[in-house]
Amino acid sequence: MERAELLARCSDEPGRITRLYGTHAHASASGTLAGWMRAAGMSVGRDAIGNVIGRLEGERQDAPALLLGSHFDTVRDAGRWDGTLGVLVAIAVAEWLPAAGRRPSVPLEVVAFADEEGTRFGTAFLGSAVLAGRFDEADLGRVDAGGVSLRDAIREYGGDPTALGAAARAPGSLAGYVEVHIEQGPVLDESDVALGVVSAISGQTRAALRFSGVAGHAGTVPIELRHDALCAAADVVLAAEALSRETPGLVATVGRLTVLPGAPNVIPGSAELSLDVRHPEDAERAAAVSRLRERATEAAEARGAAVEWEELLDQPAVVCDAALSERMAQAVEGAGVRPATLPSGAGHDAAIMAAIAPVAMLFVRCADGVSHHPDEAVAEADVALAVDALAAFVEDFAP
Amino acid sequence: MERAELLARCSDEPGRITRLYGTHAHASASGTLAGWMRAAGMSVGRDAIGNVIGRLEGERQDAPALLLGSHFDTVRDAGRWDGTLGVLVAIAVAEWLPAAGRRPSVPLEVVAFADEEGTRFGTAFLGSAVLAGRFDEADLGRVDAGGVSLRDAIREYGGDPTALGAAARAPGSLAGYVEVHIEQGPVLDESDVALGVVSAISGQTRAALRFSGVAGHAGTVPIELRHDALCAAADVVLAAEALSRETPGLVATVGRLTVLPGAPNVIPGSAELSLDVRHPEDAERAAAVSRLRERATEAAEARGAAVEWEELLDQPAVVCDAALSERMAQAVEGAGVRPATLPSGAGHDAAIMAAIAPVAMLFVRCADGVSHHPDEAVAEADVALAVDALAAFVEDFAP
Repeated sequence: MERAELLARCSDEPGRITRLYGTHAHASASGTLAGWMRAAGMSVGRDAIGNVIGRLEGERQDAPALLLGSHFDTVRDAGRWDGTLGVLVAIAVAEWLPAAGRRPSVPLEVVAFADEEGTRFGTAFLGSAVLAGRFDEADLGRVDAGGVSLRDAIREYGGDPTALGAAARAPGSLAGYVEVHIEQGPVLDESDVALGVVSAISGQTRAALRFSGVAGHAGTVPIELRHDALCAAADVVLAAEALSRETPGLVATVGRLTVLPGAPNVIPGSAELSLDVRHPEDAERAAAVSRLRERATEAAEARGAAVEWEELLDQPAVVCDAALSERMAQAVEGAGVRPATLPSGAGHDAAIMAAIAPVAMLFVRCADGVSHHPDEAVAEADVALAVDALAAFVEDFAP
Repeated sequence: MERAELLARCSDEPGRITRLYGTHAHASASGTLAGWMRAAGMSVGRDAIGNVIGRLEGERQDAPALLLGSHFDTVRDAGRWDGTLGVLVAIAVAEWLPAAGRRPSVPLEVVAFADEEGTRFGTAFLGSAVLAGRFDEADLGRVDAGGVSLRDAIREYGGDPTALGAAARAPGSLAGYVEVHIEQGPVLDESDVALGVVSAISGQTRAALRFSGVAGHAGTVPIELRHDALCAAADVVLAAEALSRETPGLVATVGRLTVLPGAPNVIPGSAELSLDVRHPEDAERAAAVSRLRERATEAAEARGAAVEWEELLDQPAVVCDAALSERMAQAVEGAGVRPATLPSGAGHDAAIMAAIAPVAMLFVRCADGVSHHPDEAVAEADVALAVDALAAFVEDFAP
C-alpha cells in the first residue's frame, strides 16, 4: 500500500495520477520499480522500449522462466491500482521468496510493462507487444499531441526503436505469464469475493452503424409517412440490451449515439451509433453480432430507412491456460478464499502474452467496479490475499 | 407565380431566400406587397410593427371586416411559398373581386404579417400577436445576433414600439380570419388532393427528459449490474413511436438525443432527449403525454436509473371555426376539388388570430411535404384552385 502511494506521486499532473509513456514521471516510476526489484535480490534490466524486467534465478537455471507482471503507465486522472497493483504484487512475491528461504523451481521474472493504456500514442499494449514480438513497426511513426513521434519518444526515454524486434521473447521460452489485476468491474464486489480466476479475456467486435431516414417536420408528417432514423437506432439499442440479458456472458453496448439534424421539432433524418459486443467465446460473439446485424437491417426496413454497418474491430477471445488457471484456483483456495471464476471484459497484457506463452490472470476485487478514475480502490486485506495466493502459486510452480 | 418570383428576390442573402424582420429585403418586400394591394384598389397602411394591411370596402361599410392573409418573413435559406403564398392568394382575390364587378358583403382586408417565423429575434408570431393584442412587451428587449433590440429594430423599420398595444384589433371586430398556407407536410401530396381544409391547429407539448444512470466499462460490467441511461431513453423513443401508431392524429417525436460520456466503450451514464407531442385534441394529447411520462419513469426504474421530466411548452390546440370551415369546404368543392380535412401540426398566425376572431385555414399541397427549404414547391394549377376557392368563399361570405 505504501509503494502504491509512492508511485501515485510519480505523476505528470499535480494533484492527479497521470503517468504517460516516456515522461519524467514515468521514468521516475521506472527507476523506483527497478530499485524495489533490486532490493528483492533480482537482477534488473530495461528492454528496448523501457519495460522494466527483474529476474530471480531458480533451481533449474536453464528452464523457461515464469513471468509475473502488469503495466505501470496510466490513463489521465487515473486511479492508483490499474496495472500498478499487478506489478507491486509480483515484486512482493519475488521479495518474499528468498526472505522466506524459498527458491523457485524455475527462474522467476517480473515485468513492469512500460505502456499498456496507450494514452500518449493511441496504441494499447505497446510494452507486451514488444515482449511478445507483436509490435507493429508502423506505430513508430505515430505522434503524440505535441507532435513527438513514438520513435523519438523511445529514444529520448533511453530505449532503442531499432532493437524492438530483438527484445521479443521466443514462443515457448516462457513457462507462463501470470498477471494480477484489479477486476475493473463489479462482479467480485457484488458477490463479496476478494479474488477471481480469469477464464478468458473476451473477444470484442466494434462496429459503427449509420441509419439514414428522411428528416421532416415533427408536427406535419404523420407517423405512417415517417422514416425516422432514431427510431431504427433505438430498436438496436434495446435489441443489444435484450440479447445481452438472454445470453450468458454477453455484453453488447451502445455507448455513442448521435442524431441529425438533432432539433426538437425535426424528425431525425440520420442516426449513428457505436456497437461494442464482447463474449469470452468467439462463436457466441459471432452469433450475437450476426443477430444484431439482422435486427439493424429489419429495424431500418420497418421504417423505410437504410443502415450501413462498418465493422471496426473483430478481436478474438483469449482463453487462459486451463492448467495454470487450475493451479491459480488452488493457490487462492490455499489462501483461504473460494475464488470466483469470471471472464475479463477488458483487454490486458495477458491477452498479448498468450501469443507466446500460457497465461493466467488473478482479479482482485475493486470497490464498486470503478476503474480509470481517482476513486479506484482496493482493500488492503484483499491485496494481502492476492500476495499470499500468488506466492503459493509460484512456490508450488513446477512446469 | 411571377409575384412569388419577384418576392424571392427580396432576400438578405444572395442566391438564397432569407427575409428577416426589419431588414432591407424585408422592407423591399413590404413595399412591393403594398404596391400590389394598392393596384388592387385597396387602401393600404402599415401598423406599428410593420404588418401591411390593405382594405376594400364592402356593401356594409360598418360591418366587421373579413381578414385574409399570412406572413411575408422567412426562415434562413427558405423556400418561396411558406407564408408568401397566403399573402399572394389573398391579394389575387382582392384584385379579382372589383375586376369581376363583385363587391364583398362586408369590408375585405388583407394582412401581410411582418414576422411569423421569429428567425431574427427568436419569437414567433410577432405580427399576428400585435394584431390580436397578444404581444408581450417584454419581448421588446430581445436582441438579435448583432445585439440590436427588437425595440430599436421596430423603430428603424419605421414602426412604433410604444404603439403596439394600440395596433390591436378588438375581439369581435373581425368577421373572421382566413389563411391560405402550404401544408408543410406530405398528407395532401400522398393522397393526391390539391387542397385541404384545416380542422384544427394541433396543440403541442414539449418536454426535456434527462435520464441518469451509472457510467461503466462496456466490457467489465455484466448486463444485470448496469444502469444504462441510453437504454431507458431508447425505450421512450420507441414508446413515442408506438403510441403515435396506435393513436389517430397523434405525432410524438424525439428529435434530439444526447448521450454522455458518449464513448464506444463506456456504458452511457446519462442521456437527454427532447419530446414533442402534438394532437388536434387537447385531451388526447394530455393522455399521450401522461402515458409517455409513466413509461419514462418505468423505463428508468427498470434499469435502476432516474429520470427528470421538464415540461417546456403546453400549447393548447386551436379548433378552426366550424361554420367558416364548412363554407370553405363548399368553396373548394365549387372549385372542383373534393377537399381533404386535416389538422395542422405546425403553428400558424391563424392560431393567434383565433383569440379575437373565428378562423379558417386552407392548405395547398406542396411537393413531398417539404418546407423551410429551397426545394419547397407548389403546382401552379393548385395555386389557381386555391385562388378560385378563396374567391368563391369571399364572394359568398355573409356573416
